[in-house]
Amino acid sequence: MDSITNLITTLGKNARTAAKTLRSASTQHKNNALNNIATQVNQNRKDILNANQKDLEQGKSSGLDTALLDRLMLDDARLDGIIESLNQIAALPDPVGEITNLKFRPSGIQVGKMRVPLGVMGIIYESRPNVTIDAAALCLKSGNGAILRGGSEAIHSNLALYTCVKQGLIDADLDQNCVQLINTTDRAAVTELVKASDYIDAIIPRGGKGLVEAISNNAKVPVIKHLHGICHTYIDKDADTQKAIDIAFNGKTRRYGVCNATETLLVHASAVGRIMPELVAEFIAKGVELRGCIETQKLSKQIKQATEEDWNTEYLDAILSIRIVNSISDAINHIETYGSGHTESIVSENYTSTRRFMSEVDSSSIMVNASTAFADGFEYGLGAEIGISTDKFHVRGPVGLEGLTSQKYIVLGDGHIRK
Amino acid sequence: MDSITNLITTLGKNARTAAKTLRSASTQHKNNALNNIATQVNQNRKDILNANQKDLEQGKSSGLDTALLDRLMLDDARLDGIIESLNQIAALPDPVGEITNLKFRPSGIQVGKMRVPLGVMGIIYESRPNVTIDAAALCLKSGNGAILRGGSEAIHSNLALYTCVKQGLIDADLDQNCVQLINTTDRAAVTELVKASDYIDAIIPRGGKGLVEAISNNAKVPVIKHLHGICHTYIDKDADTQKAIDIAFNGKTRRYGVCNATETLLVHASAVGRIMPELVAEFIAKGVELRGCIETQKLSKQIKQATEEDWNTEYLDAILSIRIVNSISDAINHIETYGSGHTESIVSENYTSTRRFMSEVDSSSIMVNASTAFADGFEYGLGAEIGISTDKFHVRGPVGLEGLTSQKYIVLGDGHIRK
Repeated sequence: MDSITNLITTLGKNARTAAKTLRSASTQHKNNALNNIATQVNQNRKDILNANQKDLEQGKSSGLDTALLDRLMLDDARLDGIIESLNQIAALPDPVGEITNLKFRPSGIQVGKMRVPLGVMGIIYESRPNVTIDAAALCLKSGNGAILRGGSEAIHSNLALYTCVKQGLIDADLDQNCVQLINTTDRAAVTELVKASDYIDAIIPRGGKGLVEAISNNAKVPVIKHLHGICHTYIDKDADTQKAIDIAFNGKTRRYGVCNATETLLVHASAVGRIMPELVAEFIAKGVELRGCIETQKLSKQIKQATEEDWNTEYLDAILSIRIVNSISDAINHIETYGSGHTESIVSENYTSTRRFMSEVDSSSIMVNASTAFADGFEYGLGAEIGISTDKFHVRGPVGLEGLTSQKYIVLGDGHIRK
Repeated sequence: MDSITNLITTLGKNARTAAKTLRSASTQHKNNALNNIATQVNQNRKDILNANQKDLEQGKSSGLDTALLDRLMLDDARLDGIIESLNQIAALPDPVGEITNLKFRPSGIQVGKMRVPLGVMGIIYESRPNVTIDAAALCLKSGNGAILRGGSEAIHSNLALYTCVKQGLIDADLDQNCVQLINTTDRAAVTELVKASDYIDAIIPRGGKGLVEAISNNAKVPVIKHLHGICHTYIDKDADTQKAIDIAFNGKTRRYGVCNATETLLVHASAVGRIMPELVAEFIAKGVELRGCIETQKLSKQIKQATEEDWNTEYLDAILSIRIVNSISDAINHIETYGSGHTESIVSENYTSTRRFMSEVDSSSIMVNASTAFADGFEYGLGAEIGISTDKFHVRGPVGLEGLTSQKYIVLGDGHIRK
């Protein structure tokens, strides 16, 4: 335990020193590092894939399931994706130093805000090795030092990718400690990291609800949390039939295992007749298991009964719960009671209903006549995301470069004193 | 202890219910409540002053010092101030519901951000009773429920003021639990409040460093911290003589007991000769005790030697520490080492120096040729402030209505599904 404390303290001090230089590094300087890392990944494909092979073999022999092994797996196509992602982040505008709203005040001073890095980020993630590069790149571009801690099952892949990061930093004449990887798989390192408030300004856990809750409960450092996505699509009484069918179907079936998938469909009673027979048939044809309230069950014998637990569940699977409601108020109440504050969509042509849904539903993304599947940093124009915050504090929804920054006040005077 | 847990749970549940209605209350509705509260305070001056008298007498008999008794004291002029503050907050633009940056994306969806309340705020403060009204008003206007906990020495004053708040809410047809006051002086209530993450979205402690640290260490809820202000004024080699003298003098002497007062003066060695003799004389004439480095001490026999502790101290008094530095880098390093991240000012006519100071100094407010005394929500145009955040997370610097809000994403489509 002592050696872990020492390790985190050393990493923390290194990170603070490096972050101080990174804070005022030029955009070109940071972009050079990103491009260098891309070059390194490209040149070291063989080493990276060999390291990944080691992880995969160990994973197989320790009995990881196929979904996990798939997340862990790297191949040339996925390395192309990593390189592409680095190039895209290099191409994004630099958020650091942007001064906004610089306005004169009656006293004669001019007051504005300057966007600045948060400092040092701790990123804790699970099996996908590409997060090593994504997290490093987003922190670098936003001027933040980073301490990375990947899943133990991906340790060889992460170390190989981290070698590329380090060389890319050195080649760009940046402090190689701008990004550091915790190279032990000891869990105590996470416990220490989330308490290291002298060295870490914020923690981002990327992983399942269990990981995020464990970290939040122990952290002495602010955590940008992404808990879970129990997303709802609500079909209003004034919904357009085709839009409702398309949006509900896409929200559930585009991808099952993602946090922005629709998990519960709420339907206004007066829209059921013209919309649900076709929609239910489509879901059944696609192989989606349906669980509904008593009214919903009348639509098909293949619809199981939904329990209280269903409304509370993020399936991440080909399962959908359905509830028929008597009003938009009932729909909003259902979301308030069971939702996780991630993403909710209303399908409606009614001006007042859509306006009310936007104002009253307290989630990180509110969609009107669009699929919940759009809740994504890239779709929102953030260029990339490091996670989706279901918190309200600091940043909400997809977290891109801006979410990794803060704003300080800039005051310009000409010898001004306060009376 | 159990009854305190029950109390906080009850207050918390009430606050959640009230905050849900307040979240979408109209601007006019909220302004009516603010105006009603002002009317109540005006109509109940006698009761409020009688209650305050009780607090003052108890304070005197329990041996509170004169500074504390002054903070506790209300009179007609201070009640006028409270009423004026309510009117000003009513006149501020409503931050809630503002939609910004609504832009079309290549997919055809339109993405923007809507400003929304955080939810329920816990405000913990010390002896000034006017905070009861200020905090209530700022939370109301920003659409947040509030649970207030004032200092035990001000309990009668706070209860009298809270009666006005409650009546003002009722008269405006708002849930009276939009603002609640903890009516026990039991300290356990604070301990419970800062852990009530089911009911509280953020805690703002308003008080000394001891209070803020105690709360931060125990909190399970995000804390908007204002730790302390060790503010620096740096006189650069290219400083204008008169501006330097005015700004340094004003920064220290405008008011001593405030967090934006300059506590340490840093002076470039090559500017000492033309600036410091006059400035030192002015400070001495004003009765400011000076504590300097060895070089500074050469300027006057009345300058005591500054110790390491001086650089680390927020005097809040007529004392100033002075250090002569050989470069702007040394000044920035001194601030990095000893500063509290509150406010720092550079006095310089040099383009590169001012630009570098703004970029490299990591504090919530950076002043150029202006007194540190300007670090204030009202001076910045926020209309009012509930505190000054020395944190980087969520909000930095003076915290006005915007700091009490968050932004959610709004996505508008026309039947859009994601490919």
